Amino acid sequence: MSALASAAIVAIGSELLTPLRVDTNSLVITEALNRLGLPLVGKAVVGDDRQALAHTLRHFLQQADLVVCCGGLGPTDDDVTREAVADVLERPLREDAGIAQRLRERWAARGETMPEINRRQAMVPEGAVVLANDRGTAPGLWIDIGRQVVVLLPGPPREMRPMLDRLAGERLAARATGLSLVRRIVRVTGRTESQTEESMQPCYRTWSGWQPPVWATILASLGQVDLHLSATAPRATDAEAVLAQAVDDVVAVLGSDVYSIDGQALEVELGALLVRRGLRVAVAESCTGGLITSRLTDVPGSSRYVERSIVSYSNLSKTELLGVPERLIRAEGAVSEAVARAMAEGVRRCAGVEIGIGVTGVAGPDGGTPDKPVGTVAIAVALGDDVQVATRRFLGERDMVKFQASQAALDMLRRRLLEM
Amino acid sequence: MSALASAAIVAIGSELLTPLRVDTNSLVITEALNRLGLPLVGKAVVGDDRQALAHTLRHFLQQADLVVCCGGLGPTDDDVTREAVADVLERPLREDAGIAQRLRERWAARGETMPEINRRQAMVPEGAVVLANDRGTAPGLWIDIGRQVVVLLPGPPREMRPMLDRLAGERLAARATGLSLVRRIVRVTGRTESQTEESMQPCYRTWSGWQPPVWATILASLGQVDLHLSATAPRATDAEAVLAQAVDDVVAVLGSDVYSIDGQALEVELGALLVRRGLRVAVAESCTGGLITSRLTDVPGSSRYVERSIVSYSNLSKTELLGVPERLIRAEGAVSEAVARAMAEGVRRCAGVEIGIGVTGVAGPDGGTPDKPVGTVAIAVALGDDVQVATRRFLGERDMVKFQASQAALDMLRRRLLEM
Repeated sequence: MSALASAAIVAIGSELLTPLRVDTNSLVITEALNRLGLPLVGKAVVGDDRQALAHTLRHFLQQADLVVCCGGLGPTDDDVTREAVADVLERPLREDAGIAQRLRERWAARGETMPEINRRQAMVPEGAVVLANDRGTAPGLWIDIGRQVVVLLPGPPREMRPMLDRLAGERLAARATGLSLVRRIVRVTGRTESQTEESMQPCYRTWSGWQPPVWATILASLGQVDLHLSATAPRATDAEAVLAQAVDDVVAVLGSDVYSIDGQALEVELGALLVRRGLRVAVAESCTGGLITSRLTDVPGSSRYVERSIVSYSNLSKTELLGVPERLIRAEGAVSEAVARAMAEGVRRCAGVEIGIGVTGVAGPDGGTPDKPVGTVAIAVALGDDVQVATRRFLGERDMVKFQASQAALDMLRRRLLEM
Repeated sequence: MSALASAAIVAIGSELLTPLRVDTNSLVITEALNRLGLPLVGKAVVGDDRQALAHTLRHFLQQADLVVCCGGLGPTDDDVTREAVADVLERPLREDAGIAQRLRERWAARGETMPEINRRQAMVPEGAVVLANDRGTAPGLWIDIGRQVVVLLPGPPREMRPMLDRLAGERLAARATGLSLVRRIVRVTGRTESQTEESMQPCYRTWSGWQPPVWATILASLGQVDLHLSATAPRATDAEAVLAQAVDDVVAVLGSDVYSIDGQALEVELGALLVRRGLRVAVAESCTGGLITSRLTDVPGSSRYVERSIVSYSNLSKTELLGVPERLIRAEGAVSEAVARAMAEGVRRCAGVEIGIGVTGVAGPDGGTPDKPVGTVAIAVALGDDVQVATRRFLGERDMVKFQASQAALDMLRRRLLEM
């Protein structure tokens, strides 16, 4: 039998074509296939529609060695996966005596008679191999078509997963290329997507000539850029070795703009740095409204380095709790580097810790002025008596300004700690 | 121009073919299309692969009047959507002077020179209409092909959404069938999915007989249950009228467990209640680490009712800032109703406002005891001198415990305010 080198996934169910549901089965299936060296060429969602499904199956059989269909194996009229596959293969559906027997026993065990309609679940295209379903009535099917394979899995995740696991360990493993696809995610801040891309271009060219080659995809989201690196090799360790070299290249090019070489969140990497340096932090937040501290405390074990935080939303609270002089707020404005600095120093002193962070800004949509438009944020990091201050200007809605401000504050501290 | 009667969506990006990312843009697009009476015949995900994308476009152009492509419009080599569309249409790509000009101005406004690579974003297939992008560099495109239409939208949601909204109001509306599918989301807390389902069953039966009928789908997520109601009618107002009646039925059955009749977040509804009652709030957070206050301050205008908050992560900070007696912590433990109550009272007094919230718990993964396992959270709401306290037990990972605790605290306050 020849090895399967590429795959496609079809999720079946009209509910998956509404705005209410997203197909997540395909993520689990992709993970299992990738581990066996099977990359995805595409995936699709189709409704409970025999013709549309047949059309999609034909489309993918032109592109992939393996097509995994998920869903539409139930007993009702709108479960049409078996029929659509039979149409495409031009093979008749026949009742499988073994399945029919097991279905009847399943109902009998509950003291009930199987409704006639459920016999549909025993219909299989000629030549199909039945995959047992321990957790439901719909069996899966494995169908060889020349050197290609179509696999039908049930839609409910709790029925699909054990069937997939068994397949991955047995039938699919036997047809795998023997190649492993391995991934690494490098996370970057302080650069735009196109700046990162431009700096990395020469590396892309070099990597594509490696044996095995390393492929890169760049992905920007709010306040950060992710580089997804992947390599495929007969042994996972070989793929891992070239990826490690590629990661070194990224760090050599982007320097301290790289904050994680294994896809960790900024707060996780910062937490590890704080633990390593034995330092504790306290935060005075205004426009971020607690988000910085919430992110810091998302990390297990963060109670070792987060002492307290104060969300000083009113000016009075800045004065009362952080000792920011009232006249300073009047003279410079609540959103100013001077106030951010006083907040950072105030919360550090109040908590009796080494590090204080102070953030004040205009999250919007109201409160902007020509001088300090919505998105203006002053950030201060006090490390002992040494205070660093910066003013940034973020674009976007209120929640986006909040997130970017939190990202910038955490990143400012990370860079300070790297210099120590 | 003939009406568009069916649609398909293609999400483009190799990262969407990994186990790491799921395409959610298509949900928002589906919602907008459904509103215009355009059902989806299918959707697909393809990688950054010109041939595969062209193949998929051809596939959907055989089935749907409208194909919406999302992503792959960036400036880099792996952004191939423009090229693939040009391949399928057999039309050349030309530089659009207007786009090129706007791109240069955008970079100039930031005091930077546009990298040469970004000129790719100005290339458009002949005959395409340019859709302005206010939030990024990638313009969208509308391309008529006989009576069919291909629309290209940028991948980043914050750029895609406003462009989609404009399209839905203008070009797409002009080509719609005249049937409107309207949805309402009713949000519920304090009941499980199956409890909600059981209570609502009789309504479902009644609604299905209405003209037009109302359909309901139930969707559970962390700490809440959403009821999605939909109706289709020639006039949107007719669909809205039956939906309004159905919403009344839901409220009659579920009472104050309904916290929003129009899909708003709990913090938005709570904020409106606080404004209506003219009350201000201060929060003392331990295990939630600032999340409650961050959620409260996600709402525009929340500075009217959020005075301050204290994240008292250490025991010392509970004593120093909130006046929680040290011996109380020793006697009852930091996670206890007595401490939650003292925190709520302490922060209310310290802030000089009407309402104090205190939350203390074990977010995990460590710190659990047989007596107070991971997920145990004590919540107190002080309204004037009247304090309500409860202990809850949440399942799941650290971030899930944090979220559920924040949800329970906000909901406890909401119910208190409803009783006033």
